[in-house]
Amino acid sequence: GIGHSWAQQRNRNVLLIIADDAGFETEVYNNTAIRTPHLNELSKRSVIFRNAFSSVSSCSPSRSAILTGLPQHQNGMYGLHQSVHHFNSFDSVRSLPLLLRQSHIKTGRLVYLSLSLCFLRPFFLYVAFHDPHRCGHSHPEYGPFCEKFGNGESGMGRIPDWQPQRYTPDQVKVPPFVPDTPASRIDLAAQYTTISRLDQGIGLVLKELREAGRANNTLVIYSSDNGIPFPNGRTNLYRAGIAEPMLVHSPEHTGRWGQVSQSYVSLLDITPTVLDWFSIPYPAYSLFGKEPVVQLTGRSLLPALDAEQPWSTVFASQSHHEITMYYPMRAMHHHQYRLIHNMHFKMPFPIDQDFYLSPTFQDLLNRTESGLPTHWEKSLREYYYRERWELFDTQQDPLETRNLASDPSYTDLLETMKGHLRKWQWVTSDPWVCAPDGVLEDQGPYKLHPECRPLYNDL
Amino acid sequence: GIGHSWAQQRNRNVLLIIADDAGFETEVYNNTAIRTPHLNELSKRSVIFRNAFSSVSSCSPSRSAILTGLPQHQNGMYGLHQSVHHFNSFDSVRSLPLLLRQSHIKTGRLVYLSLSLCFLRPFFLYVAFHDPHRCGHSHPEYGPFCEKFGNGESGMGRIPDWQPQRYTPDQVKVPPFVPDTPASRIDLAAQYTTISRLDQGIGLVLKELREAGRANNTLVIYSSDNGIPFPNGRTNLYRAGIAEPMLVHSPEHTGRWGQVSQSYVSLLDITPTVLDWFSIPYPAYSLFGKEPVVQLTGRSLLPALDAEQPWSTVFASQSHHEITMYYPMRAMHHHQYRLIHNMHFKMPFPIDQDFYLSPTFQDLLNRTESGLPTHWEKSLREYYYRERWELFDTQQDPLETRNLASDPSYTDLLETMKGHLRKWQWVTSDPWVCAPDGVLEDQGPYKLHPECRPLYNDL
Ligand SMILES: [Ca+2]
Ligand SMILES: [Ca+2]
Ligand SMILES: [Mg+2]
Ligand SMILES: [Mg+2]
Repeated sequence: GIGHSWAQQRNRNVLLIIADDAGFETEVYNNTAIRTPHLNELSKRSVIFRNAFSSVSSCSPSRSAILTGLPQHQNGMYGLHQSVHHFNSFDSVRSLPLLLRQSHIKTGRLVYLSLSLCFLRPFFLYVAFHDPHRCGHSHPEYGPFCEKFGNGESGMGRIPDWQPQRYTPDQVKVPPFVPDTPASRIDLAAQYTTISRLDQGIGLVLKELREAGRANNTLVIYSSDNGIPFPNGRTNLYRAGIAEPMLVHSPEHTGRWGQVSQSYVSLLDITPTVLDWFSIPYPAYSLFGKEPVVQLTGRSLLPALDAEQPWSTVFASQSHHEITMYYPMRAMHHHQYRLIHNMHFKMPFPIDQDFYLSPTFQDLLNRTESGLPTHWEKSLREYYYRERWELFDTQQDPLETRNLASDPSYTDLLETMKGHLRKWQWVTSDPWVCAPDGVLEDQGPYKLHPECRPLYNDL
Repeated sequence: GIGHSWAQQRNRNVLLIIADDAGFETEVYNNTAIRTPHLNELSKRSVIFRNAFSSVSSCSPSRSAILTGLPQHQNGMYGLHQSVHHFNSFDSVRSLPLLLRQSHIKTGRLVYLSLSLCFLRPFFLYVAFHDPHRCGHSHPEYGPFCEKFGNGESGMGRIPDWQPQRYTPDQVKVPPFVPDTPASRIDLAAQYTTISRLDQGIGLVLKELREAGRANNTLVIYSSDNGIPFPNGRTNLYRAGIAEPMLVHSPEHTGRWGQVSQSYVSLLDITPTVLDWFSIPYPAYSLFGKEPVVQLTGRSLLPALDAEQPWSTVFASQSHHEITMYYPMRAMHHHQYRLIHNMHFKMPFPIDQDFYLSPTFQDLLNRTESGLPTHWEKSLREYYYRERWELFDTQQDPLETRNLASDPSYTDLLETMKGHLRKWQWVTSDPWVCAPDGVLEDQGPYKLHPECRPLYNDL
C-alpha cells in the first residue's frame, strides 16, 4: 500500500506495455498454436491474471481510462479520438502522466524503439504497440492485420529486428465466439503473424530494460486495450470484447511469479497500481464543479502480487466507438454473472468501418444473405438486436448466448446487480445514469442531490 | 458579389447579433402582443427574411455552423460544447474569425456592453445575447426564462439600462405548435419579458454603433441560433425548431429596406455573406486529408438585398444536443415540402435537461400521465416515436402533423428529395451519409470513391 519510503520510491520505475486489440492468442494463456516466447518469458516472472477486464471496448476510450483511472463516461473520451470522431478527455482530468510529473517522475510514450534516452530515473514509460490491430480498412496493402508490413516483400518495407512467423489456416485455434470458417481461419492466421511481431517487439523493449540495468526495480505491466476485432469482440461488452491478457511483473514480489490469479481486475486498476508503486496519493478533485468529487474506483494490484485476492466484481462502460456508432452500454461482471444494460437496444448494434471490411465479417454477411450455414453460435440478427438487459451465467454459458434477464428465478440477482451497476454510475458521475427512460437533473436545485426524472417514453 | 475595391472594403464593418433560442415573438413578425421597438426600428432599414432557417437546432452546433459556414457534421461541433458534452469543432476548420483576421479585419466577441474599444476599422463584431434562453434548469431563482435576472428584486440584482416589461398570461400569443394551457401561457409571458430585455440590449448596441459613427458602413445581421425551447422547437428539425428571425441591414442597399423576402436562406449563408461584404475569397481546403475539399455550400445574401431571389431550398443536420441525446436527423426544405430523415427512429426522441423542467413540458407530461386533454396537436407518444422518413406539405399542413412519406402519390417527390438530401450529405462530407443501414467506407481503396456498404440490419 501507500507508504513506501522516498528511498524506495526514487529507485522505482514503471514500464506499461499496451497492445492494440490483442486477446488470449499467446502461449501464456495456453494457446499452443502460436509461439510467443517473449511473453512466455515475462509471464514466468509475473502474476498471470486470468480475469482482467478493460472498462471499455474501444481504443481511445480504453487508453484514456487506463491513463486516468476513470471510465470513459467520467473522463470525457466517449469514443475514438482520431479523425472526424474527435473525442477528447476533459482538460481538467488529472491523468497519470500529470500526477507523475507533479511528483518529478519522468514520463514518456515510446515512439521510436530506442529507450536509452528514457532511462532517467524514476521513470514511467508507456509503450503502445499498434500490433495486432487490423489494417484492412485503411491500409489493405499490408494485409488484413498488417501482417505484411515490414516483412521484406516488395513495397512492404523491412523491419530489421523482425523475423516474420507465418501460420496456416489449419494451424489456428478459432475462439468459440468466432464463426469457424475458412475465411475466419485465414483472418486469424494473419493475426497470429502480427502477434508474433508484437511478441518480438516486447522482447526488444525488455532487453533494453535489462541492458540499461533497470530490470530489477521496474514494475512491468502488459495488457491490451480491448478485445480482438472479431464478432462479439471489440466494441462489445461481452467477455470477448473486454477480457484482456494481463501480466504484472514486480521484481520485488517474487513469491507468485508464474502463478495464475483468478481475481477480477480492471484496467481501471492500472492508475491506482502505478500511484501505489510510486507512493503517490490518489487524486480527489471536482470536474465542472460537480458532486461527487472525482475519485478512483479502481484499486492497487500490488496486494495480488503477494497473495490471491477475493476480488470478484468489475464494471464496464461504452458509449461511442466511431462518432456515428452510438450504442451506450453499461456492464457489471460479478462472480460468474455478467449484466449488460443496452440503452439503445431498439436500434441495431453498430459495426465499425474497420471490422466491417474484415474477411470474417464479410463472410458472415455473405453467408447470412445467401442462407448458408454461418458456423456461428448466434445469428446476425441476434447480434444486431439485443435485449435491453442481458444477464449471463458465464460458468454455465461461457458463450453468453442464453439471456437470463427475463427468467423469474433470476429476478433477485438481476435487481441486485442493477442496483450495484446504477450505484457505480452515480459514483463515477455518469451522464447516462438516467438513460434511456429518464432525464438526469443535476444543476440548480438538484446540484447537491441529482435525480433521475421520468420521461414516460414506454421503454 | 466578390470584387469590391479595397477602398470600399476597408471602410466596411459587420455587426452580427445572434439571440439565443429566439423565435418570431416580435412585432417585426406581426406578433402584436409584444413590444420590440428596437428590432422594429432595425427592420425598417433591413430586408426581413420570412424563410430563414438554422442548419441545426442546438446552441453550440448552430453557432459553430454560423461562424464556419459548415454544417455541424462537417465542422465537428456535433453537439453542445459546454460541460460534460464537450464537443469541439475541428482545429483545422477555417472559421470566419480566422479568415477575417488573415485579411486584417478586427474581430471581436462582445462580453461587456462597451463597444468603443471594438470600433477600430474594419471590424467584425459578433454579439451573442443569452436572452431569451431558459433559466429553469440551472438558475431557477431567476425564473423559467431568467426574466427576473437584473430586474431589481431582492437577490436578482439590477441592470441599470433595462426597464423590465411584464406580460400577463392572457396577453401572449401561443404558437400553434405549443399546447395552449395556463402553464404554457405563464411560460410564454416570462419569455416575452426576456425578449424585451433582448430588444433593449440590441437598441443599446445599435446606439453605440451610431454614436461611434459606424452606422453608415456597417452590415448588421440579426438572427437566432435555433428555435424556441418549446415542444417541436429547439432540438427538432421541424419548422418550429429551425425557422429563425433574420434581419439584414446594409447601409449600401436601401432599395428593399423594410421589405419582406420570401427567399429561403440559411444561417450557413452568413459566412459567405460576410466574406462577400469584405471581398474575401471563399476558402477551399481539405480536412483530415479527405475528399471532397471543404467548400461553403451557402451563398452570399447580398443579392437578396437588391432584389427578391428564387432561392427555395435549405438543408439541416442535427446529431447530438447533450452528449446523451443522440438523435441524428438530416432535413431538406424545398418549396413547401419538408423532408426529415430520423436515423434513430426506433428510439424515443430525447428531451434535454433544460426543456424537461420547463413549465410547458412538465404540464404536458402531467396531463399525459393523468389522461387530461393536452391541448396539443399531437400526443407525447407521437412526439417520442417518429417515422424514419417524415415528409410534410407545409402549405397544406403548417403544423407538420400529416406525414406523407408513405403516401404513394408522393413517392416520386420523396425519392427526388431523398436524392438531393443524400447528395448534400456527400458534398459536405457527412460521416452519417450511410447511416443507419450502411457503413461508410472512405479510406484505403475507397479514399477517392467513398461508398456506402450494406449492413442488412432490417432497417
Ligand atoms: Ca484497440
Ligand atoms: Ca440556443
Ligand atoms: Mg476541453
Ligand atoms: Mg481537435
